[in-house]
This record gives sequence, C-alpha cells and structure tokens, in this order.
Amino acid sequence: MTTETEEKSLRYRRAQSVSKAEEITEQEKKVRKLQLDKPVHIPRDSLFSWSSEFNNFTGLVNWGFLMLSIGGVRLGLENFLKYGFRVNPLEWLIVLTGYNVGDRSQYPSVILIIFSIVPIVVSLLLEKGIAVDLIPEKFGVILQLSNLLFMVLLPIAVLHIKGNDFSFVGISTVCMLYLVIFLKLWSYVQTNHWCRLGLKKKYLDNKLRRQSLSAPNWNKLITAAHEQSKEDLINDTPAAARLTKYPDNLNLKDLSYFMLAPTLCYELNYPRTARIRKRFVIKRVLELFFGINLALALFQQWMIPTITNSVETFAKMDPVRITERLLKLAVPNHLLWLCFFYLSFHSFLNLMGELLQFADRKFYADWWNANNISVFWSTWNMPVHMWAVRHVYKPITELGFSKFNASIVVFAISALFHEYLVSVPLQMFRIWAFLGMMAQPPLAIISRQAELKLGPRWGNLIVWSSLILGQPLAIMMYYHDYAMLHFKPVQEVP
Amino acid sequence: MTTETEEKSLRYRRAQSVSKAEEITEQEKKVRKLQLDKPVHIPRDSLFSWSSEFNNFTGLVNWGFLMLSIGGVRLGLENFLKYGFRVNPLEWLIVLTGYNVGDRSQYPSVILIIFSIVPIVVSLLLEKGIAVDLIPEKFGVILQLSNLLFMVLLPIAVLHIKGNDFSFVGISTVCMLYLVIFLKLWSYVQTNHWCRLGLKKKYLDNKLRRQSLSAPNWNKLITAAHEQSKEDLINDTPAAARLTKYPDNLNLKDLSYFMLAPTLCYELNYPRTARIRKRFVIKRVLELFFGINLALALFQQWMIPTITNSVETFAKMDPVRITERLLKLAVPNHLLWLCFFYLSFHSFLNLMGELLQFADRKFYADWWNANNISVFWSTWNMPVHMWAVRHVYKPITELGFSKFNASIVVFAISALFHEYLVSVPLQMFRIWAFLGMMAQPPLAIISRQAELKLGPRWGNLIVWSSLILGQPLAIMMYYHDYAMLHFKPVQEVP
Repeated sequence: MTTETEEKSLRYRRAQSVSKAEEITEQEKKVRKLQLDKPVHIPRDSLFSWSSEFNNFTGLVNWGFLMLSIGGVRLGLENFLKYGFRVNPLEWLIVLTGYNVGDRSQYPSVILIIFSIVPIVVSLLLEKGIAVDLIPEKFGVILQLSNLLFMVLLPIAVLHIKGNDFSFVGISTVCMLYLVIFLKLWSYVQTNHWCRLGLKKKYLDNKLRRQSLSAPNWNKLITAAHEQSKEDLINDTPAAARLTKYPDNLNLKDLSYFMLAPTLCYELNYPRTARIRKRFVIKRVLELFFGINLALALFQQWMIPTITNSVETFAKMDPVRITERLLKLAVPNHLLWLCFFYLSFHSFLNLMGELLQFADRKFYADWWNANNISVFWSTWNMPVHMWAVRHVYKPITELGFSKFNASIVVFAISALFHEYLVSVPLQMFRIWAFLGMMAQPPLAIISRQAELKLGPRWGNLIVWSSLILGQPLAIMMYYHDYAMLHFKPVQEVP
Repeated sequence: MTTETEEKSLRYRRAQSVSKAEEITEQEKKVRKLQLDKPVHIPRDSLFSWSSEFNNFTGLVNWGFLMLSIGGVRLGLENFLKYGFRVNPLEWLIVLTGYNVGDRSQYPSVILIIFSIVPIVVSLLLEKGIAVDLIPEKFGVILQLSNLLFMVLLPIAVLHIKGNDFSFVGISTVCMLYLVIFLKLWSYVQTNHWCRLGLKKKYLDNKLRRQSLSAPNWNKLITAAHEQSKEDLINDTPAAARLTKYPDNLNLKDLSYFMLAPTLCYELNYPRTARIRKRFVIKRVLELFFGINLALALFQQWMIPTITNSVETFAKMDPVRITERLLKLAVPNHLLWLCFFYLSFHSFLNLMGELLQFADRKFYADWWNANNISVFWSTWNMPVHMWAVRHVYKPITELGFSKFNASIVVFAISALFHEYLVSVPLQMFRIWAFLGMMAQPPLAIISRQAELKLGPRWGNLIVWSSLILGQPLAIMMYYHDYAMLHFKPVQEVP
C-alpha cells in the first residue's frame, strides 16, 4: 500500500510541475479558441512520456503473437526448402524412451513414468488406513513422508545404476513428473491432516459444551452455542449438502482428478465449470501444436549453435567475448522462455482445466508489469506460488517464525527443486541453479530500492534484465562444465 | 459509438456465458470457505484469455526497449571485435554531401538544403505585400502557390541536370526537407488567408450594424450587439491582450519559430511551456545517439544482406521462395521501422518541442491498439494527420463535398507525397508507393468489417499484419526494379 501511495504522490508532483510549466489559464484557452487562425494545438504530453500515465498497450500482445508466428512460418519454409518434409513422430518416441542410446530395448524412462502410479496408490492406502484407525495418526504421517522421500529419490538411484540407458529428454521428463507428483502428494497428505485436526477440534468443542452444561459456565456456553448455530445455519443448506466431506474424499476417483487437475493444491471441492467449450479446446490444441514446433525450431536452429560456439570462448575467459556471447545467447533463450511460458501456463494448463471442467484458471498474474523481483516470483507461476504459500509459508509463520524467515525457506526449497530438475538429468551436481535461486532475495531487495528511489519503471527494467540475462548465464555455466567434463580430451589436443 | 456499444454487448454476453458456466452461488462460496481443507481456488479466467478483459501490458514497453538495447550493445561488441573501433563522423558528411560520388567538390545536396531558405523568405515577403495592400489578394495567393510549386519541383529539376553528383542519402534528406517546408508554408499561407477573411467579415459585420441603425431591423441589431459584447468581453481580458494578432505575426522571428517547431500547422499563438527541462533534453539526446547507431547496425548487418540475397529469387518468381524471402525481410524491416518511429516521433520531435518550449507533444496516439486501418492512419503520424484534417479534409467538406470524397483526396495527396519521397531519390518513377497508399482505403473497409464481425482483436491483427508485411513488399518491388535497371548486364552473363 505504501508503494502505491508513494507512486501516486510522485506522479502527482510530476503532473503538477507539468501543469505549472504550461501556465495557460482557462481564460487564455477560451481566448485562443476565438482567434481567426483556427488553432488546433493544446498542451499535452507524448504517450511514451512517463508523465502521460498512459498504460494501454494491449495491441503489443497481438504484435508479439504475429512476430512469433511470422518467425515460425519462415523457419518452417526454410527448413522445408532445405530438407523437404521430414517431421517424424516416431523420432519423438525414440528420444523420449532412449531406445537408441542403449539399444537394449529397456525403456527405463517409460518404466519410471508408469511406476509413478505406485507411490500415488500407496499414499491413498495410507490415508485410508489412518482414516479408519488402522494406522495410528503419527506413525501414518511418518510413513507418508517416507513414501514421498522414496519417490523423489527414486530417479536419482535408478539413474545411478542404469545411467547409460537414459536419454536426456527422457530423464528430464521423469524428474519433472516425479517433482510435480511429490508436490501434489505433499498437499494431499497435509490437507487430509488439516481435516482430521479440524474434526478433532470440533469433537473436543462439543465435548466441552456438554461438560459445561453440568458445570454451568454461562459465558462459554453462550459463545459455543452461538458459533454452533452459525455453522449449522450454513451447513444445513442444500449447497453444503452437495460438498464432499472428509473422509468421503479418500477414493481413487477423487485422487486421480487431483493428479490430472492443473493445480498443486489439494482441495476436497474444487470450483467447476458447467460444460467443456469445444472452440476453446480446439484453440489451445492448435496453439500447442504450432507453438511446440516453433519452440523446437528456435532451439535447434538458433540456440544450440550459439551455445556450441560459446564453449571455447568461456574456456578462454575473455570478459569482452564472454559478454558478447552472453548477449547473443540471451535473445533466443528469452524468446524460447516466453514460448515455453505461454505454451505451459496458458495453452496446456487451460486445456487441462477445460477438459477437467476446473474453473480456477489463474495460472499466472501480470508478471510482465512486476516492479520488483518479489512481485515477479509471486506472479509468474501461480500453481507453485499458491502451493508454497499454503503449504510452506503459512504453516511456518503459524509456528511463530517471522515472515522474512518463512520466505527464505520458500526460496531455499524452490532452489532445491530447481537444482533437482537440472542436476539429475545432466548427472552433474553443480550448484549454479541453487545459487541462481538464492540470489533472488538480495536481488529482490535491490529492485525494491530501485522501485522506491528511481520510480516503478526502473524496478520493472531490473526485473526484465534479470530475466533476460540471468537465465543464459546459468545455462552457459552448466554447458561449460558439461563440455569440460565430456569433451575435455578433444580440447586438450591442440 | 456503435462499435463501443457492440463491443460491450459482446463482452457482456461472453461474461454471462462464463458466469453461467460456473454456476456457483454466493452461498456455495461461503460454505466452501468454512470447510476444513483451507480452500484457495476460486473460479477465474487466465489473463491472456480474451474474456478476462485484462489490458495492462505497460511492462512490455520496457521489455521491447531492453530487447532492442541488448541487440544494439551486442551488435556493437561484435563489430568492435571484428573491425576494432571505427566510427567516423567524417564519413557521415561524405555520405550526406555525396562528395565521394562525383569527386568534383560541388556538394549539391548541401547547396539545396541551404537554398531552402529562399522560398521561405519569398513566402514571408509575399504575405507582407498582401497585408500592406502592395499586392492584390488574389494575385498574391497565385504567387504563393507558384512559389510552393517551384520549391517542390526544384529537387527533381536539379537531380535531372546533375544526377550523378548526388548521394542517395543526400537527395533523400533534401526531398524530406523540401516536402516538410512545402507542407508548413501551405499551412502558413492558408492560415494567414483565414485571418484576412475573418477580419473582412468582422469589418462587414460592423458596417452592417452601423447601417442597421439607420434602417432599424431590431432583430439583426440585437443579435449583432449580443455577439459583439460576448467577443469584447473575452477580447478585453489581459489574456487576450498577450496574444499576437494578424498582421503582427508577419515577421521573420515568428516564421523561423514555426519552421523549427515540431508541427506542420501554423498558428499565431502556440501553447508554450514555462521552462526547458534539462534532464528531459539529455534523455532525448542519448536516445537519439544510441538509437541511430542501433538502427544503422540493424540496417547494415541484417537488412542489406537479406535484400541483396533476394533479388535473384524475385527474378525467378517462385512463389514459395518469394514468400520465404518476404517473411525473412519482414522482421528486420519492421524492427527498423519501430526504431525509426520511436526516434523520429518520440525522441526527435520531443527534443525540438522541449528546446522551443512547444507544449503540444501529441506527435502520435496509441496506434498500436488500432482496431482498423483508418484508426491507424489517423493516429501514427499526428503532425501530418492534423495538417491533412485542418488544411485538406475540413476545407473540402466545407465546400460541400462528402466526407468519403474528402478522405479519398487526403489519401491521394498522401500517396503522391510517398511517391515523391521514394521515386525522386531512386530516380526511378514507379508507382508502387502510390499504389500502396491507395490500397489503404479498401483495406480500411476490410479491417473495419473484420473488427465488427470477428471482434476487435482481429481488426488489430489485420492492422499489424499490413504494417509488418506491406512495407517489405513495397521495398522488394522497388529494389527489384532498381536492380533490374542497374545490374541487368551482370545478371545476363550466366
């Protein structure tokens, strides 16, 4: 709220200085209008001037869409002219399964993807066991956590034993899938735990109320009765009757819906849409089809050559050349990231939402206007943000820790996950991704200061810069280490 | 107004269908909030979904600015690494003057630029002559028009005689300058003419009023007296006393200010700012310096090779290859046009405005949101738009012609000017530029229909497409003809 007020006062002061500068009174305007030279000029600012306060740039979204489409169509035509038509869906399966690599027909990635059903079912069975008092509550929670830990460590172990049978794309897919399931099951276990705690509290409250009848503490009695009646009023409505209540939610159908739904936060009753809009589904499918092709073309034709050409430069450690390479890599990398963002967070998640009639489509907020890094991190990936707030940040602050500590824990967990997604597929444990994420809180403070001292535009420029320049830096670090590890003998020849 | 209403009703219907689809009553929401699973999801749309009605994309302006800066810095570094530091301001002078071409030390472009003062002074002297009744009004206007015609034809004539002494950049600058002066003087002559007409009318009115005293037509008398008193009231104020009135404006200082001011419309009293903001001036100068370098780099390193490579393709007339080339050319050409737009219409005109304390800075409106072609043409270039409305469109409609005819005349005049700016420097009279401009009115009708039938987004997409794809098409046409004309012998060898 302070920022907004400050922003407004800043703008107001600017506007004031402009209006003072103009110094044209209402009377003068009227007199000018009556002159014989048919005047058309009045004092006003250009729209790009910050003082104009103009902010409608909707057309630029269409512009970006068109520019990317034109780029995609052109690259497609060029490829077609050079190599003819050679899209091969079979190649995709080979890349995913790693069939080509080992040539031993073992498909370890596919087996791991199918195996992911096991920890899900185990988690459901354990919840069921706790609900019917077959397993004691505390022991059950320990079992659940062991199950989660086993699941997230499984890809590492399998990769360690049969590393050569995996393709890079295959193991990346496995890691992503296992991480998503880990977060979803975490939410599932914790939410069910909350339900049990809530029921226990209600039971204890009721008991207290009954006891208080025998030992009349009227004050307590009235409060309890009042609360009970309020709750009854709303729980007796037909709307309440339609809601699922714990432990009726513990079944395979409910858990499968959650696993497929575009969210990481488990709830017993999701807001739903009434029907599946066919036009909406078709649009998202077309976006995915053309978008993935565009992204692949960008990756193969622009990014891979740039990275490959850069390794030697990085080995030599010439700062001017490294800067030049980094800037060259930044543009295709950033465009690829924008494609990835739109395809995953708009096209794919909206498609899943529409098919499952899941009504909450806030998969991203307006991160492009973010005036500091913290706002960016809490707006660009809403499923993870909502998960982190509900399952990490709030529980920690409720334990009595400060908000600052809680957000450091959130960033640390997020950093671990980023490292997991990069290091495991590369089979190379560096800490660049971890460090990159842990650099965010200090960067957030710097950008916040810039926003306050220099104005919101500068905060936004810092956010974009860190986004455009930070990623290629991390990619170069990993690629450099990877190339040093795998191609070193070749490099030592000259 | 109809469009807005239709748009709103369309949006309303969409919103209705969404809210129906959700079918979650207020009561249900309340009940869900009270559940034990701490729900966080509520029904809402993604921001990129048209139904969300979200339109704040201010951050994208900063994004575009950063991406262009990164591109500029990288190209600069690459050039520096390849060729070392070799910015040579002298080369600029050589390019401008065409010294290198003829090697006869005649600098015809510079002479023409300096000579442009003559028609300006002649115009002032003629106005002065008419004002003091030295030259009869009608004869004076004919002399003024001859002066204007002579000025605009002069570059063509000089080029015809001494064509080989000119550089392309030199003659382009001359044509641009002469066209701007032509438009400004046109406005100057017409505005002074209006002032004389107005004064005459006032004089006749006064005479009428005096006559009407002897022959009492009370009705007329009362109306005239009423009008006179209203005018006196406002003309007696100190604000009115400060305004320049015809013919006090006919002096060199006033005309020089108008010639330098960032407008094509002459007025006797412009709105002025109170002071020159130094920070503002420095920012605009820096933008111009770095922006021009970026634009030149884009032009030399990206566009010239693409155009050169395309000539053969165009000669062969293979439609697939022509499309591929056109799309390849479209991206750098469009980026260059965006640079040109920002540098001329924001940086340069704002700089001139600030230095001259000229307060009307509406050099462009939000053409990026234009939902049909007519809106684009009336928003992207405000100086020309204001000139065309004040000095062509309104006078024609006041003569009793229809608005449609008036706008066709405006487009035809604009098409002639475009042709002048392209054909004269190329010394090659084709009509591609003229045809390109004359294709705009039918395109405007098509885009208007698309906007009404398919929604505003489609209208905006058509505007952007015509902008991104139309220009490179015209450029290729001219370059093709130019190459055929100049390099034909070389092509006929194989």
